[in-house]
Amino acid sequence: MKTIVIIGAGMMGSAMSIPARANGHTVRLVGTPLDREIIDHARKTGRHLKMDRQLPDGLSYHQFEDVKDALKGCDFVICGVSSFGVDWFIQEALPLIDENIPVLMVTKGLWHDGQGGLVAFPDYVKKNSGLRHSVCAIGGPCTSYELADKNHSYVAFCGEDEKALSMMKAALKTDFYHISLTKDVFGLECAVALKNAYALAVSLAVGLHEKAHGPGGVLAYNPQAALFAQSVKEMKRLLALLGGGEDNLIFGAGDLYVTVFGGRTRKLGALLGQGYGIDEALKMLSGVTLESVVIAGRTHDALFQMAESGKARLEDFPLLTHIGQLLKGETKLNIPWEAFEEDRI
Amino acid sequence: MKTIVIIGAGMMGSAMSIPARANGHTVRLVGTPLDREIIDHARKTGRHLKMDRQLPDGLSYHQFEDVKDALKGCDFVICGVSSFGVDWFIQEALPLIDENIPVLMVTKGLWHDGQGGLVAFPDYVKKNSGLRHSVCAIGGPCTSYELADKNHSYVAFCGEDEKALSMMKAALKTDFYHISLTKDVFGLECAVALKNAYALAVSLAVGLHEKAHGPGGVLAYNPQAALFAQSVKEMKRLLALLGGGEDNLIFGAGDLYVTVFGGRTRKLGALLGQGYGIDEALKMLSGVTLESVVIAGRTHDALFQMAESGKARLEDFPLLTHIGQLLKGETKLNIPWEAFEEDRI
Repeated sequence: MKTIVIIGAGMMGSAMSIPARANGHTVRLVGTPLDREIIDHARKTGRHLKMDRQLPDGLSYHQFEDVKDALKGCDFVICGVSSFGVDWFIQEALPLIDENIPVLMVTKGLWHDGQGGLVAFPDYVKKNSGLRHSVCAIGGPCTSYELADKNHSYVAFCGEDEKALSMMKAALKTDFYHISLTKDVFGLECAVALKNAYALAVSLAVGLHEKAHGPGGVLAYNPQAALFAQSVKEMKRLLALLGGGEDNLIFGAGDLYVTVFGGRTRKLGALLGQGYGIDEALKMLSGVTLESVVIAGRTHDALFQMAESGKARLEDFPLLTHIGQLLKGETKLNIPWEAFEEDRI
Repeated sequence: MKTIVIIGAGMMGSAMSIPARANGHTVRLVGTPLDREIIDHARKTGRHLKMDRQLPDGLSYHQFEDVKDALKGCDFVICGVSSFGVDWFIQEALPLIDENIPVLMVTKGLWHDGQGGLVAFPDYVKKNSGLRHSVCAIGGPCTSYELADKNHSYVAFCGEDEKALSMMKAALKTDFYHISLTKDVFGLECAVALKNAYALAVSLAVGLHEKAHGPGGVLAYNPQAALFAQSVKEMKRLLALLGGGEDNLIFGAGDLYVTVFGGRTRKLGALLGQGYGIDEALKMLSGVTLESVVIAGRTHDALFQMAESGKARLEDFPLLTHIGQLLKGETKLNIPWEAFEEDRI
């Protein structure tokens, strides 16, 4: 049995306690300073305040001031913060973790390197912390709610350290949580990050249909499938351009699939598809800063910079180009359907 | 303006009249002997009996005994029969068509070559007719209903004859029907045929969830996405093994997406996912012989034969293997989740 410490008690971090406890490990859930209420609520009720799910028996709850105690004797740490919390994690949490203890990040997304390149979070963490931890990450189609419900989920863990990867997989794999391992960190992280922009793109078709036929009716799937096919085409191209391997594209395609069917990214895409501008649409979603919007913007910026330096051709990415322009408010909705056509004869 | 003859007045054949008429071509819809009622009904009402949609103005309707007249002066023929009608088309219709007139098939699927190989229908038609027609085909995510509704659809036309492909595209492309061209006939046809087996596979998750939580509730998407990711992985591998190029895999992925969201293939997969055996499930669907089941069986047979001759490893295709066994009634539902896991470290 292992001792696993989860730092960050948001929905995905907390949901990781479910497979961990299902396997009988000792699991300590430590909130960030932003998670204070979640930890208090969980202590009192055994439930997660935001996810509205029962948390597993035997889980212990800790505020961040007790993190040093919580870390004692642990085998690995799960970093449960979102991409907005990564810098905090590097500055406040990572230095407290023994450098021999590996870290598994649930954080999704890519950072920009300021020169048009994109960086996977495990590399970002290593570079910016200056510490020697083995940093691994999870990618793939897995929503926290459904992991908490023990629905079958299939993800990949990526990292450079085979031993750490194998140890984490052995600790967390259950009969509902299925895990592949890969050393292609950038390929996996990139494949699953790209889905942010493309989930917005596929959801445009939802809004387009709702606008024409009113909400709540039977949806149209030809347009969604058209955008899905074009998305996979562009994701594959972008992954190759950015230097990721192709084996993990399936996790990006799966993540695209699951993201189109729920959550705020779909809602935002549908609003854009109805013709609302980005500012208006974000206002309608109560102004929450969506991780997906930030990451989609970063992806578009990277494409644009590659195009400027002659490494990429914008015309190979008509859908991402349009999404980037929509997010910047530079254009009205005008899905470039015709640009999807290619004559390979 | 062109003159286009559609032979076969089923739903997809008839739906092709919509982009054709939208572009103002002369379009003649000829029923097979099985379409007699459809043609009579359309003549009287202007509507399609099965699709329950208005057919376009200016379309002319013909019973099969008038096919020779209908073919006079035509620029190309659309073969609108399903895979069950291809032999009839070869014997009864193709010999009546001038060999200089190209044919565009809407027929989906693959034929088996009796030696564990699979044959795309354009090649099957050419080989078995002994005639010299240029035979092209359509692949990609496009349901007839939605094409009739002029929803945006994105497909590919494949064939060996560049001139015929370009002519057909120019005639049929509209602001809602978007067409890529490819010379990789087998790659396209194979990619879109493979989705039959894998749409059943993804739909298993629908039934699995309905069985656990009752029908009509909120669906779970992690399991669907897991099966979707595994499906794309196996489709890609199978396409490579069978000798198809990879560029058209996106049409297979798009077609998989659209098929999971509607129709009888999803219903059958969901029944299998609830644990019904294949015979029982088909009985519940009124015993209709589903094209998807036949094509899924053929795909599984081809895999099995390749495995027997050492060309393929069954363990690379756990999902297709399971689907094949389910369709043959050789096993109970037991999704091989764990076999999806791969450690590439």
